[in-house]
Amino acid sequence: MSTITALRTSDIRFPTSTMLDGSDAMNPDPDYSAAYVRVITDSDDGLEGHGFVFTIGRGNDVEVAAIRALEGHLAGRDVEDLLADMGGTWRELVYDSQLRWLGPEKGVMHMAIGAVVNALWDLKAKRAGLPLWALLSAMTPEEIVALVDFRYLSDALTPDDALSILRSAQNGRDGRRAELLASGFPAYTTTPGWLGYDDAKLDRLCREAVADGFEQVKLKVGANRADDVRRLGIARAAIGPRISLAVDANQRWEVAEAIDWIADLAPFDLAWVEEPTNPDDILAHAAIARGIAPIPVATGEHGANRVMFKQFLQADALRVLQIDATRVAGVNENIAILLLAAKFGVRVCPHAGGVGLCEVVQHLSMFDFVAVSGSIDGRMIEYVDHLHEHFVTPVDVHDGRYWPPTAPGSGAEMRTESIASYTWHARTGDAGR
Amino acid sequence: MSTITALRTSDIRFPTSTMLDGSDAMNPDPDYSAAYVRVITDSDDGLEGHGFVFTIGRGNDVEVAAIRALEGHLAGRDVEDLLADMGGTWRELVYDSQLRWLGPEKGVMHMAIGAVVNALWDLKAKRAGLPLWALLSAMTPEEIVALVDFRYLSDALTPDDALSILRSAQNGRDGRRAELLASGFPAYTTTPGWLGYDDAKLDRLCREAVADGFEQVKLKVGANRADDVRRLGIARAAIGPRISLAVDANQRWEVAEAIDWIADLAPFDLAWVEEPTNPDDILAHAAIARGIAPIPVATGEHGANRVMFKQFLQADALRVLQIDATRVAGVNENIAILLLAAKFGVRVCPHAGGVGLCEVVQHLSMFDFVAVSGSIDGRMIEYVDHLHEHFVTPVDVHDGRYWPPTAPGSGAEMRTESIASYTWHARTGDAGR
Repeated sequence: MSTITALRTSDIRFPTSTMLDGSDAMNPDPDYSAAYVRVITDSDDGLEGHGFVFTIGRGNDVEVAAIRALEGHLAGRDVEDLLADMGGTWRELVYDSQLRWLGPEKGVMHMAIGAVVNALWDLKAKRAGLPLWALLSAMTPEEIVALVDFRYLSDALTPDDALSILRSAQNGRDGRRAELLASGFPAYTTTPGWLGYDDAKLDRLCREAVADGFEQVKLKVGANRADDVRRLGIARAAIGPRISLAVDANQRWEVAEAIDWIADLAPFDLAWVEEPTNPDDILAHAAIARGIAPIPVATGEHGANRVMFKQFLQADALRVLQIDATRVAGVNENIAILLLAAKFGVRVCPHAGGVGLCEVVQHLSMFDFVAVSGSIDGRMIEYVDHLHEHFVTPVDVHDGRYWPPTAPGSGAEMRTESIASYTWHARTGDAGR
Repeated sequence: MSTITALRTSDIRFPTSTMLDGSDAMNPDPDYSAAYVRVITDSDDGLEGHGFVFTIGRGNDVEVAAIRALEGHLAGRDVEDLLADMGGTWRELVYDSQLRWLGPEKGVMHMAIGAVVNALWDLKAKRAGLPLWALLSAMTPEEIVALVDFRYLSDALTPDDALSILRSAQNGRDGRRAELLASGFPAYTTTPGWLGYDDAKLDRLCREAVADGFEQVKLKVGANRADDVRRLGIARAAIGPRISLAVDANQRWEVAEAIDWIADLAPFDLAWVEEPTNPDDILAHAAIARGIAPIPVATGEHGANRVMFKQFLQADALRVLQIDATRVAGVNENIAILLLAAKFGVRVCPHAGGVGLCEVVQHLSMFDFVAVSGSIDGRMIEYVDHLHEHFVTPVDVHDGRYWPPTAPGSGAEMRTESIASYTWHARTGDAGR
């Protein structure tokens, strides 16, 4: 038996706002940050579980405080018990009635639970000696269903539905695992498209993206319509007609405005329109989806929980579902969302970038391919090429593909030196060195 | 000119779980708490603005940390400037792009903004020498519209719509103000109906409620169907056929379960069914509303923001809209919600109870009556008779009515001795004395 002795937290902030990396129509000056947690045990194996919430600067300290509020649930607990019943562990954390009041199941407190749940999954995968995607892909349908809380989902997805989806995908798991190892998982890149980049940099980065093997490029739009038209022209000319071109409005528009604005962008042959309006607005997304068809609507990086995703699917308000590794309550809730997407026949193309999101979310897409949807058609994971050097097992992306991690764990572990160097000093307001 | 010098915060917790006051199907043991903030200025007037977020215990420290994260926006700022343009002040706080990432516009961070916005309104009302309801009710339609952010609302409510609603209500403001002062605003009581109370106490408290002049009583349901039927029978017998009887499931049910369960309760002539399922689930509420018609669905105390309320109204998912004083981003956002309700012709019956919620939310209903909906038909404010003694200007509820406050301010100010006595000591975990 071994016991959790502590949750150790760090407030890590990278001063990215000085570079305009990550600038978009709603987030002009993000400082990519992580409210970071290590689950420490007294086991002889010396293994720790690492997890984090991605934020964009101010308020990262609030997120750290929320993680700290969960220590009382875990300190002194038997590690094997918690890891053996991750469904039960998830429910215990999410249904703490006092903490739940602070959401419920949304925002700072829910994301904190996600960080802790993901850290426990990291520990579980390390103990198993497997990368998280392989650990999940080796579980039986019954074990996977036991991870999911079906409360508030049963009008769209029952445990029997989920079992049926997972059992169908059992045939062919080995073949898809081999295919994944041989060919990787498709990536697309957002690196060229930040609003803060000038035209020459946009053109250059688009050409580099194609040379690097990416088959889709995404541009930020929504601040100025004439600029969008000009920038899309530059991008389309640079990438040619064969490469897909998606746009991301980062919640900038009203319903009528979105439909009208997108009409001006449609001639550039858009692969999808991402976050056209407020991420809570299911009905508005559905109206926009009808108004811009056949161009698909994509959203999800700010989807607060599985109940919101369920409704987006029920209302036909998205055709590309973008899970995020640290917005919902961790791996368990994302598995629920993957199952919902499979039930509705919608493809999942994760949000990534930020700091560490690529490292973690790739495991979920690879698990989805091997054991849930069983499909790679139209699926791809976002890729942005910064801050990977701070992780112990950075992503391996080349030839336009994510290559499956082989190291044990979830990918969340940051290098000790990076944690030390970029820990935020509240007194000076200095975001890292 | 005067300047904000500090936000002073307190983590206040009342050990209510020991009494089972406030126990319901989802919240068995709440410790009613307040993440409390005082806006301090260097003005000679000595006035402070007070506000808070109501929570139910654990995590109140996280909420306090979120309020503290807003100090940088306000410390050193000119008070008159901030108070003269409360619409601009609201937008500055809500659209801090880095902090917005932590919601967006939901959960811990959004509620913290609500506390600070409400504290500024408290200060503004004190400076004007008016109770908040009277201050708001004296503003012109144009001034009120300037308080509201219409972003993401325009598919349901435009500034012109709002102006038209407010101008219609200008006629008769004086008469309604006089009516309010003469007759008060209807209240209903939840005091008898907590799940933790035994049958004898339920019966006794129901009879007392009628004797006290209340025309509606509300019972918690959803934990056990046979218990609900028995308890509703006791309550209906105690109050007689003339008094309204509402039920509150506190998010306990799935869609089909709700419809089925409510069929067993319907013979008791239900005034409304409150929070039948997850508060984010617009489509489920709409399905339940269709399934239990003509019994109305009531919800809103966990409505995260105006965009969620907009959709509940668009989807016909509620017929009784329950605003909460501290769940959304303060007075401004609640005014947006009152205007949405008026546009859709839906009555507003605020959630209250907890600690201080009655004191604050009454101002919004009184303003709604005088200057927005212009109607009191079917409107009533929840009332629970505990913890009022901790406030400087506790509510005056008698003869089944809220009587309009006359003291300047928003009602949020807690007595200094109460703050001192119930400040939580993290080290001992002692919730108050």
